[in-house]
Amino acid sequence: MFSTVAVNGEVTRWEDVRLHDFAQGFFFGAGFFTTFRIDEGTPLFLARHLARLSASISAFPSAVRAPPAELLREEAVRDTLRRCLDADAALGPRFTGVGKLAASDGKLLLTLRPPSPDAERLQREGRAVDSTELGAYRHGEPTPNHKGLSYFRQYTLMASMPLLANERGHACELPTANLFALIDDQLVTPPLEAPCLPGIIRQVLLDAGNLNGMPVVEQDLPLARLAEARACVFTNSAVLVTGVTRLLGRDLPDSLSLAEHLRAHVLRVAAREG
Amino acid sequence: MFSTVAVNGEVTRWEDVRLHDFAQGFFFGAGFFTTFRIDEGTPLFLARHLARLSASISAFPSAVRAPPAELLREEAVRDTLRRCLDADAALGPRFTGVGKLAASDGKLLLTLRPPSPDAERLQREGRAVDSTELGAYRHGEPTPNHKGLSYFRQYTLMASMPLLANERGHACELPTANLFALIDDQLVTPPLEAPCLPGIIRQVLLDAGNLNGMPVVEQDLPLARLAEARACVFTNSAVLVTGVTRLLGRDLPDSLSLAEHLRAHVLRVAAREG
Repeated sequence: MFSTVAVNGEVTRWEDVRLHDFAQGFFFGAGFFTTFRIDEGTPLFLARHLARLSASISAFPSAVRAPPAELLREEAVRDTLRRCLDADAALGPRFTGVGKLAASDGKLLLTLRPPSPDAERLQREGRAVDSTELGAYRHGEPTPNHKGLSYFRQYTLMASMPLLANERGHACELPTANLFALIDDQLVTPPLEAPCLPGIIRQVLLDAGNLNGMPVVEQDLPLARLAEARACVFTNSAVLVTGVTRLLGRDLPDSLSLAEHLRAHVLRVAAREG
Repeated sequence: MFSTVAVNGEVTRWEDVRLHDFAQGFFFGAGFFTTFRIDEGTPLFLARHLARLSASISAFPSAVRAPPAELLREEAVRDTLRRCLDADAALGPRFTGVGKLAASDGKLLLTLRPPSPDAERLQREGRAVDSTELGAYRHGEPTPNHKGLSYFRQYTLMASMPLLANERGHACELPTANLFALIDDQLVTPPLEAPCLPGIIRQVLLDAGNLNGMPVVEQDLPLARLAEARACVFTNSAVLVTGVTRLLGRDLPDSLSLAEHLRAHVLRVAAREG
């Protein structure tokens, strides 16, 4: 993480931020965050990230003190980001990396980090997903629909990256990514009730409706049905789309080209949305 | 909360503690805490609190960086507490209130607050528990067995204090307290797999085995069975034992005397354990 951060739009040093100002976020995980990619100074899908963050804050009005509404507006965040990049020679106006907005205690914290160290390798080589965490979620539970500071369940699983499933044996998501499987010529992703995060890239793909003749749909995804998948990818805002080259022991070499194809679509939409 | 706190045994000011030093605790809820009562300068059941905190830390060795082991020893915490009380005229060596130890990022934070403002009223009048949150937990899920900084689920429910139940319709706990119901002349509390927190006061009562001729037992507690309860209490470390004077719409006037009786036992054990 870089030392230059912003609290409620004010550029400061990470070392100078007080725990005191984020106490409910720390003690109770009472807050939300969102992580977004920055390409050469431009944040990707910022409006969508802010809409989701604001929706989560609005869903828990008594538990999380909201930052001032004007600070959650797209132009305000773009301006804050610009001032952070300008203030730090290690960043600069053409910075490429990852931004994170965390909201708690009536404050909005912007932090910045370099690109995921394994992003390029993931893009080139994909990765295997060979284990499941059955019953990690309960069907319909609402918490995973929000990217909350109470992130421990997912955090403990980040390194092993199992496929999280609910008590019905339906796939939900990965600890930090949504899942898409190509089954019967449809690109299938679990519904929000599985539950899973309403991921930004997930929604960009769903918005397309149809990609290269493949309908993109939300459907219950029993683990057994994944045996029929011809290809599989996971999506998140930092790496966008990653091919799952082996899924639960079965090689899926076509996942890499599917990932490349979907990534190109996502980047086109990002450019259009500016 | 008082301004005098301690980080890794060093007395400092809350305003001077840096978020930087508790970053994984804040961003991911990757840490644990415990809250204990302090009566006239003496922490109650401190050894038990530290044993549970250490057990939670040990259960997640890769996700939570443990504070130095020697800081988690009872004598070290007693010494830190003593120096905090001595350092602040608003506290003093005969301080009565609530202490909190939070562990994350290789650090141990001790904070202090006044007694719960409603503690005396709760002791005198008890309180009603009239709503349930069905499916709040999933039977057997491990997270509620640890008092973690990812506390949002419980935090959002603190004000309304519903009875949390699992998907089987079995009672688990309250957002910040364990539950005991007097049924068939037994004092029944849900098992840890319900799930619930292994609360310190809960364990003190279970350790007794039998109180005034009433066996104290862990048993599945279907919500329907609560209709047979003759009295009911909830327990936590700050208020110890609180009578539930109305449970899901049914008046239980005997809960107050049961609470008083159990509280006296808890205080006797506390005095013995020093």
